[in-house]
Amino acid sequence: MSREALYNKIIQKKSFLCVGLDSDINRIPKHLLKAENPILDFNKAIIDATKDLVVAYKPNTAFYEARGPKGMQTLKETIDYIPDDILVIADAKRGDIGNTSKMYAKSFFEYYNADAITVAPYMGHDSVKPFLDFENKWVIILGLTSNPGSADFQHLTLTDGGTLHETVLSKCASYGSTDNIMFVIGATQSDYIARIRKIVPDHFFLVPGVGAQGGNLELVAKYGLNEKVGLIVNSSRGIIYASTETDFADKAREKASGIQSQMEAILTNM
Amino acid sequence: MSREALYNKIIQKKSFLCVGLDSDINRIPKHLLKAENPILDFNKAIIDATKDLVVAYKPNTAFYEARGPKGMQTLKETIDYIPDDILVIADAKRGDIGNTSKMYAKSFFEYYNADAITVAPYMGHDSVKPFLDFENKWVIILGLTSNPGSADFQHLTLTDGGTLHETVLSKCASYGSTDNIMFVIGATQSDYIARIRKIVPDHFFLVPGVGAQGGNLELVAKYGLNEKVGLIVNSSRGIIYASTETDFADKAREKASGIQSQMEAILTNM
Repeated sequence: MSREALYNKIIQKKSFLCVGLDSDINRIPKHLLKAENPILDFNKAIIDATKDLVVAYKPNTAFYEARGPKGMQTLKETIDYIPDDILVIADAKRGDIGNTSKMYAKSFFEYYNADAITVAPYMGHDSVKPFLDFENKWVIILGLTSNPGSADFQHLTLTDGGTLHETVLSKCASYGSTDNIMFVIGATQSDYIARIRKIVPDHFFLVPGVGAQGGNLELVAKYGLNEKVGLIVNSSRGIIYASTETDFADKAREKASGIQSQMEAILTNM
Repeated sequence: MSREALYNKIIQKKSFLCVGLDSDINRIPKHLLKAENPILDFNKAIIDATKDLVVAYKPNTAFYEARGPKGMQTLKETIDYIPDDILVIADAKRGDIGNTSKMYAKSFFEYYNADAITVAPYMGHDSVKPFLDFENKWVIILGLTSNPGSADFQHLTLTDGGTLHETVLSKCASYGSTDNIMFVIGATQSDYIARIRKIVPDHFFLVPGVGAQGGNLELVAKYGLNEKVGLIVNSSRGIIYASTETDFADKAREKASGIQSQMEAILTNM
C-alpha cells in the first residue's frame, strides 16, 4: 500500500486505528476452544467486527510462533482474511545481517503477504535495506519504544549530540524514504514526540501503547500529527480482550468505535 | 545445558566450533531436491558428518520461516535430530516488550526445545528478562555484530563514556549471570575483542563471521579466550556449502575438521 493510499484510507474511514492481533489461546473466550482452530475463529470475528473502523491490523508474530508450525499457518490464514485495502503489519521486530534479513523479507512480504514489518535497528543499514527492495511494502523501524526497558539504551546521550533514539531516527530515515519507512514511537513517551516529530517531520509513526500500556491518544495526536496525519495508533489487548464472554466481538467493536470516534474528532480539528 | 557442561564438552571434543544451519533451498545440492524434504535431509547429513567435531549447531530461523509453516516444521525436526549433548542455538534475534518476549521464549525454549536464543538489546531489560526465567537455557545478546551496519550505532560514543556496544555489554550482563547470558561478538571486529573481554571477562561469546565474512580465528582466540574458554565460534556457509555436489557432507566434514584442528591447537596452548 502506498503512502498516498494509506492517507486516503485514513481520511475516508476517519480513523488511524490499528488493532493488534496478539491472540493468545489462554486469553480468548473459553467457548471458542472447542473449535478446530480457536485462534483463527477469534481473529476472524475480531476482523469482521472492526474492519470498517480501522486502517491496519498488526498480528504479533510471537503469539503465532509460540504455537509452532500450525500457529504460523494461522498467521497466514489470518492475513489472507484481512481485506486488501487494510494495511497488514507483521509485528516481528526482525533484523539480522544482509543475507538473513533478505530471508525475513521474503518470509513476511512474499509468503505471508504482509504490507509492513517491524524491524530492530541495532545492526544498522544492511540489516534494514533488504526489506526496502520490495515495492509498496513498508519497514517500520523501532525508534522509541513504549516499554520500561526503553530507558536502558534508547535515551542514552551521544557525544555527537542528541540521544540514541534520535540518531536512530535520523540515520534510519536516510536508508529509505517516507514512502517505505515508518517508525515505532511508543505512546507512553508522549513527552518526546514533539521533539521526534522535528527530526522526522514527514514519516508515519506506528504508535503502540495506547490502552493497556497507558498511553494517551490526545497527547500523541497533539505532538505527533503532521499534515498527512502521519500516525497509525495501535491498541491490542484493550480491544481484543474487552470481553472474554460470547459478546467479545461486540465489545471489541465498542472499544474500537470509541477510539475511532476520538480519532474522527482529532482529524476534524486538524 | 549448564556452563560447566558446555566447558566440559569443549575440553572433551577439543572444539569450540558451532555450525550454522543457514540452509537455503537455492544453495543445497541439486540432487537432494527430489526428496520429500530436501532441507531436512541436507541438515541431517551435515549433522551426521560433523557432530563429533562441534559443540553447537545454530539454525538461522529466517531460512526456515521463509518457507512458511512447513519450514518451521523442518526447524523442529532438525532440532529434534541434534544429539542432546550438543548446544542448539536458535539464531532468531528476537526482542519485544515483556509479554511478547515471554511468547518468544516459550516458542524457542519449549516448543522448539532450543538451548539458546539470540536476542537484540535495543528494547532493554524487560525485553530480555522473560528469556532468563527458563532454567538451563541461554540468552545470547547482540553485543558487537560482524556486519558492515554494525558501525551505524554500535560504535557511537556516549557522554557517560565508552561506546554503545560497551554499555550494552555491561548493562545486559547485569540482567542475568554468566550462567544464562552470552554475547554475540563478531569475528570481523577482532580489534575490539580485547577491550570487550575486559568488560565481560567471564561470559561466553558466540562469535560469527569466521569464514564467509572474513573473520580470523587466531585473532579471535588471542583476544577472546578466557580461563573457561569462553568462546563458541560459528561458521555457516564456509562449512555447509563447501560443495554443492553429492560429496557435500564429506566436504563439510573436511572444512569443520580443519577448523576443529586449529581449535585443538589453540586449546592445547591455553
